[in-house]
Amino acid sequence: MLTVMRCEADAFLPAGKEELPALLAAGTLVWVDLESPSDQEARELLDGVFGFHRLAVDDCLNRRVDPPKADDYGEYLFCVFQGIDFLAQTESVQTTELDIFIGRSYVVSYHQRPLHGVAEVRERLQKAAPLPARGPDWLAHALVDTLVDHILPDVEDMDEQISDLEDAALERPGPELIQRMTALKRGILRLRRAIAPQRDVINRLSRGDFHHLIGAETAMYYRDVYDHLMRLEDMVESLRDLGDSVISVYLATVNNRMNEVMKSLSVVGTIFLPLTLIASVFGTNFSPTYEAWGWPGFLAMVAALFGLAIFVWWFFRLRRWL
Amino acid sequence: MLTVMRCEADAFLPAGKEELPALLAAGTLVWVDLESPSDQEARELLDGVFGFHRLAVDDCLNRRVDPPKADDYGEYLFCVFQGIDFLAQTESVQTTELDIFIGRSYVVSYHQRPLHGVAEVRERLQKAAPLPARGPDWLAHALVDTLVDHILPDVEDMDEQISDLEDAALERPGPELIQRMTALKRGILRLRRAIAPQRDVINRLSRGDFHHLIGAETAMYYRDVYDHLMRLEDMVESLRDLGDSVISVYLATVNNRMNEVMKSLSVVGTIFLPLTLIASVFGTNFSPTYEAWGWPGFLAMVAALFGLAIFVWWFFRLRRWL
Amino acid sequence: MLTVMRCEADAFLPAGKEELPALLAAGTLVWVDLESPSDQEARELLDGVFGFHRLAVDDCLNRRVDPPKADDYGEYLFCVFQGIDFLAQTESVQTTELDIFIGRSYVVSYHQRPLHGVAEVRERLQKAAPLPARGPDWLAHALVDTLVDHILPDVEDMDEQISDLEDAALERPGPELIQRMTALKRGILRLRRAIAPQRDVINRLSRGDFHHLIGAETAMYYRDVYDHLMRLEDMVESLRDLGDSVISVYLATVNNRMNEVMKSLSVVGTIFLPLTLIASVFGTNFSPTYEAWGWPGFLAMVAALFGLAIFVWWFFRLRRWL
Amino acid sequence: MLTVMRCEADAFLPAGKEELPALLAAGTLVWVDLESPSDQEARELLDGVFGFHRLAVDDCLNRRVDPPKADDYGEYLFCVFQGIDFLAQTESVQTTELDIFIGRSYVVSYHQRPLHGVAEVRERLQKAAPLPARGPDWLAHALVDTLVDHILPDVEDMDEQISDLEDAALERPGPELIQRMTALKRGILRLRRAIAPQRDVINRLSRGDFHHLIGAETAMYYRDVYDHLMRLEDMVESLRDLGDSVISVYLATVNNRMNEVMKSLSVVGTIFLPLTLIASVFGTNFSPTYEAWGWPGFLAMVAALFGLAIFVWWFFRLRRWL
Amino acid sequence: MLTVMRCEADAFLPAGKEELPALLAAGTLVWVDLESPSDQEARELLDGVFGFHRLAVDDCLNRRVDPPKADDYGEYLFCVFQGIDFLAQTESVQTTELDIFIGRSYVVSYHQRPLHGVAEVRERLQKAAPLPARGPDWLAHALVDTLVDHILPDVEDMDEQISDLEDAALERPGPELIQRMTALKRGILRLRRAIAPQRDVINRLSRGDFHHLIGAETAMYYRDVYDHLMRLEDMVESLRDLGDSVISVYLATVNNRMNEVMKSLSVVGTIFLPLTLIASVFGTNFSPTYEAWGWPGFLAMVAALFGLAIFVWWFFRLRRWL
Repeated sequence: MLTVMRCEADAFLPAGKEELPALLAAGTLVWVDLESPSDQEARELLDGVFGFHRLAVDDCLNRRVDPPKADDYGEYLFCVFQGIDFLAQTESVQTTELDIFIGRSYVVSYHQRPLHGVAEVRERLQKAAPLPARGPDWLAHALVDTLVDHILPDVEDMDEQISDLEDAALERPGPELIQRMTALKRGILRLRRAIAPQRDVINRLSRGDFHHLIGAETAMYYRDVYDHLMRLEDMVESLRDLGDSVISVYLATVNNRMNEVMKSLSVVGTIFLPLTLIASVFGTNFSPTYEAWGWPGFLAMVAALFGLAIFVWWFFRLRRWL
Repeated sequence: MLTVMRCEADAFLPAGKEELPALLAAGTLVWVDLESPSDQEARELLDGVFGFHRLAVDDCLNRRVDPPKADDYGEYLFCVFQGIDFLAQTESVQTTELDIFIGRSYVVSYHQRPLHGVAEVRERLQKAAPLPARGPDWLAHALVDTLVDHILPDVEDMDEQISDLEDAALERPGPELIQRMTALKRGILRLRRAIAPQRDVINRLSRGDFHHLIGAETAMYYRDVYDHLMRLEDMVESLRDLGDSVISVYLATVNNRMNEVMKSLSVVGTIFLPLTLIASVFGTNFSPTYEAWGWPGFLAMVAALFGLAIFVWWFFRLRRWL
Repeated sequence: MLTVMRCEADAFLPAGKEELPALLAAGTLVWVDLESPSDQEARELLDGVFGFHRLAVDDCLNRRVDPPKADDYGEYLFCVFQGIDFLAQTESVQTTELDIFIGRSYVVSYHQRPLHGVAEVRERLQKAAPLPARGPDWLAHALVDTLVDHILPDVEDMDEQISDLEDAALERPGPELIQRMTALKRGILRLRRAIAPQRDVINRLSRGDFHHLIGAETAMYYRDVYDHLMRLEDMVESLRDLGDSVISVYLATVNNRMNEVMKSLSVVGTIFLPLTLIASVFGTNFSPTYEAWGWPGFLAMVAALFGLAIFVWWFFRLRRWL
Repeated sequence: MLTVMRCEADAFLPAGKEELPALLAAGTLVWVDLESPSDQEARELLDGVFGFHRLAVDDCLNRRVDPPKADDYGEYLFCVFQGIDFLAQTESVQTTELDIFIGRSYVVSYHQRPLHGVAEVRERLQKAAPLPARGPDWLAHALVDTLVDHILPDVEDMDEQISDLEDAALERPGPELIQRMTALKRGILRLRRAIAPQRDVINRLSRGDFHHLIGAETAMYYRDVYDHLMRLEDMVESLRDLGDSVISVYLATVNNRMNEVMKSLSVVGTIFLPLTLIASVFGTNFSPTYEAWGWPGFLAMVAALFGLAIFVWWFFRLRRWL
Repeated sequence: MLTVMRCEADAFLPAGKEELPALLAAGTLVWVDLESPSDQEARELLDGVFGFHRLAVDDCLNRRVDPPKADDYGEYLFCVFQGIDFLAQTESVQTTELDIFIGRSYVVSYHQRPLHGVAEVRERLQKAAPLPARGPDWLAHALVDTLVDHILPDVEDMDEQISDLEDAALERPGPELIQRMTALKRGILRLRRAIAPQRDVINRLSRGDFHHLIGAETAMYYRDVYDHLMRLEDMVESLRDLGDSVISVYLATVNNRMNEVMKSLSVVGTIFLPLTLIASVFGTNFSPTYEAWGWPGFLAMVAALFGLAIFVWWFFRLRRWL
């Protein structure tokens, strides 16, 4: 899907693809969004109309999710960002590449899957709503800001999932829990690896490395995005700690249940094996019969058995094994 | 709650909100403290009276606890700190954001929950007591210093809790201990994450990064706060080590008890299973009866059983398994 | 195998070894590839014809795989790279040293084993195909680029192997799985150790450290190789996480099966040991006989046995041990 | 205890507290040592006589052990060091703060507990022995050097303790060993945390950061102290490794003993449970009696029992379980 | 042992100790090697003849192995290196200090134990063989280079030992294996700690930090030594990984054997305990006798026992516990 919007008197109006050369020549602020376009369509626009560098275009078109970066081509800036989606069902984290070209009078964004953040900006612009149209740096900031804002609910979802897992670890521990936890942990690590380099890119945008394209006033707003990413990183670190604690609670619970069960066997075995021997001894053909000893013999034996059982039980308690 | 205090001849006197514009214009040293105000009230003051930057005001008003930082807006400095409370009951650490604006003749502090540190400074000022009123940088130092001083008792509380847990790990180990320990560990990690960035901020304040607002003499006092934070970080590291050692003592104790119990089963099993077999053999219908062998047979069998038991016992001692 | 190619009017033509001095004198762009040559042959060329420094020649000729590096000898650059092969059968990673000399009008490559990447470039040049012959820096880039491109499928192979192992860990865990996993982990670590220093070397090539031999335009393309290596490093990090998760799934599965088996013994033992004692007691010679009690006695005893068994079972369920 | 010594013609002579102002005015080299003084006495001297900065004096007087640091107050340098004592009985490490003020003609040392290092220097000076009195920087070096030299025997004591523990881990493993080991580990960590920042402080002293107070010639001697600390750090790292290895040897020994004991139960159980069943079967009232089969039946049954036992034994050996 | 060699017309000739002052005055290239000399002899030479700084001489004479370093005393350079020996018998790593003084016309080497590397250089010089005598920097390079070259076989020995241990871990795991492994691991860590700082020292020598004593041409050769140390560090890292993998293979094997043995008990117990109960029940005095039921009763009971055994077996297979 191709969206072209031009800015006129602080309002964004839709425009046609064919108007682009004229708008660019006039220096009107233009935003071009390419959502999952065909390779040919993309190449026509990026290469034909804008004349971007081969390497930048290739980075857009390849099907991989590239690591975030900011390349300065003089006339324009080429940035790679990553949109993050947490799929609660599979407990995995999916990243989508968002490529942004920031020129002197235009912003071109490219992504191979729909992105909530970009859609939200598009709608806001169509409503001609709160976004003051100060320039391409500002427009790019709006895109990156909403992209980053969409990570927070995902992190909160993950937090909730981990709390669920911790409860499950105490209530019904099982090996499938470890599998879910490792999947989640993988997601957390991927999240961290997606956030950290974006923070670096935003930091470079905010501290004036590209001052020919990013104004000082806007840089302050990029700094704000940087602070959000810092906070997200902090939260992701907390998620990691939580994840590790879930695993240790799981292991302690499983270990404890196992211990309880084994202890029951040990206690029962330690008590009943000797008793059975005693009973067996009186069951050998050498021992005097019922006829010879009668009830008193039987009761004396049972009393001895009980006495021994109570003694072992007392010994266990003494040693604090029970 | 809104507190306005103006400094006159080295004494701090309460002032009204409506006097603020005049006081600011006159350059009188003013401290404004906003404690859990309504959004409207806060915005009116921060935005209306002082005209702070939108981003700084937003950082104050959002309900999140932001990571500590110091932003220089030229005319004023915007710092974010975190007050730390250890809730002994839930063994968790709670952080409260404290935002401080340091201007040329004023200090504005903003926090959404009451803070012991701020209350203490307020009382000290009302008593016109030991705080020499040298300027806004000095006033801000007083706030930060008392904030940091209130962390120490919390760290000591945590230390005590860990000692309790270590005793419990030796006396009555159980899985709820692991849960408490992981909660405590989480608190320690949060503490560390709250202290480290504050140290960075204080370091920047102390080394003259903002010399247009922080005087050289006061910077030395910020350096002192920095040293306190260093010491706290050291103590938190010790807490982490203590926590890890509690867990290993717990695991060793549990493991040891389990081993003792299992060993009792193993020893009893190894001794009594063979004996029971022997007794059973003499209980088969093939073996000669009591009538045939009488007491001598019975006693010989019992002696053989005792002999075998003693032999196994001796074998276990030989191998140092007992 | 020795390959000499000279560039004429943007086309690469094969040339003889004896033409080299003339070509070098004329400043024609020349590529010399030495594939597993004899020591004498190599020394003749590297030392005799090109006159490279003794240390560089020694680095080529020794049989070890040296760590990647870039040494600037003024007139030429000596770079060491490592080609990577994942041998799926033995689940091990093999590295092959590729030495490249970049001069003002020539590129000399040396490797002791055939390399897919070099062979591919050779074929492309023979077809006079897409490679624009801009200079030795460009030619060297082509070699390094294809070398790095050949790492990706290996990483993907390893990813697949790890997925297989994770399935195996759940289905049929065994100690040979740990052996395979540690072999794979070793491969991953070797991969990481091969990629990281190459990234550093490429970074130095791309950022203009050797601008007298690497042009600014080509440097951009080295930057692209750098980005690929960044992505590979990211993927290798993911592999490590996956590997760790395989091991923890394995351990959880083994532990779980063991627990199940032990639990069955514990339950059966806890139920049947007391019952056997009871039966044994009624089998002693002291107890009244069948003749005395008849069927009612037998049935009462069996009922008592069943009752006790059901009680223990219920007790286990109550404690959630089953 | 207050010690004042003045240097006259390369010899150190004791002096009275009241002579201090005159000596300082004359620029005579003076050493003042305050050992566990009362707060009032200390304040009188540090504040009254020398006029040190409030923050430095506060750092001395507070009862905490502050982290090592060096603060430059222009006219004098304020350094915090930590003396280290290993208490072999409780296997814990105790640190004592040593504060040193280095002025142009004086050295003031302050410590709240007696320190071997300081006592040694005092004695050496009283004997007018080998210490050439080159200046305050040299005097301070003597203090720090002896302080650091007293750490080595402590580290060697700890090394010995760990060797003892390793032997104990092999001979008589028990949970109290883990407790002692964790105590020792805590000591090692504290040692490391005490040494590392002191190394930083000494490094700053040696590399000329304070060249107005530390001469170039003396700096070289501080460098020597730095090397000693480097070596100590190396040794402490070795201690950590040794400590970890003690724990793994302990765990392996305990695990091994447990395995041996459990194996004995498993082997005995696997052999005797089936045999007991067989004997029990022939003990049922259904089986023919002794009268019917006589000795041959009995011997045949015992032979069968032995045969089965030998078969199971052989099976265990075959599987290498024994 | 004291060796003095002077260089004349590119050949090294032995010289007497008494010639030294004259040779030094004449500026002839001289190499003095002190192998395990008496303290007096060493002091006479280092202090008396050469007049080295007290700190450097002390570093030589103390009996400790100091950490590698390079100290610039203006007229000469004082370097500390460590020769490494792997003692295969005790599986421990021994380090020997090698102190080298590099002056403008001399090299003095000092070591308290014989070193293969130094002996080799001595022999080469006596044969007047391949070493071109370019100056003291070159001579020192020869010493360091052979020293480093002697580490490689040791690392290879350790690699072999680890492979042996890995095989042993699979074939005959025992606690003595853990002890050997921890000894080896300690050796690896010591190796790493010996190599890393030497690399730093060599790096400083190679990058021109001491250009007044180390010529630019020789610096390149030091760079080559640096590369060798890099490779050694890489190999040592691999050793660490191999060591960790040996331990996890050991643990997996031990765990697996234990599991197999315990499983045998669990299966046998789960099958035979119920069967024994049944047989015991028919052995009670309540049950009808052989006379009453005869062979059919006996066979029915045995059939029931077999049926139950087969059912339990089938149940275990169903649950995949066997």
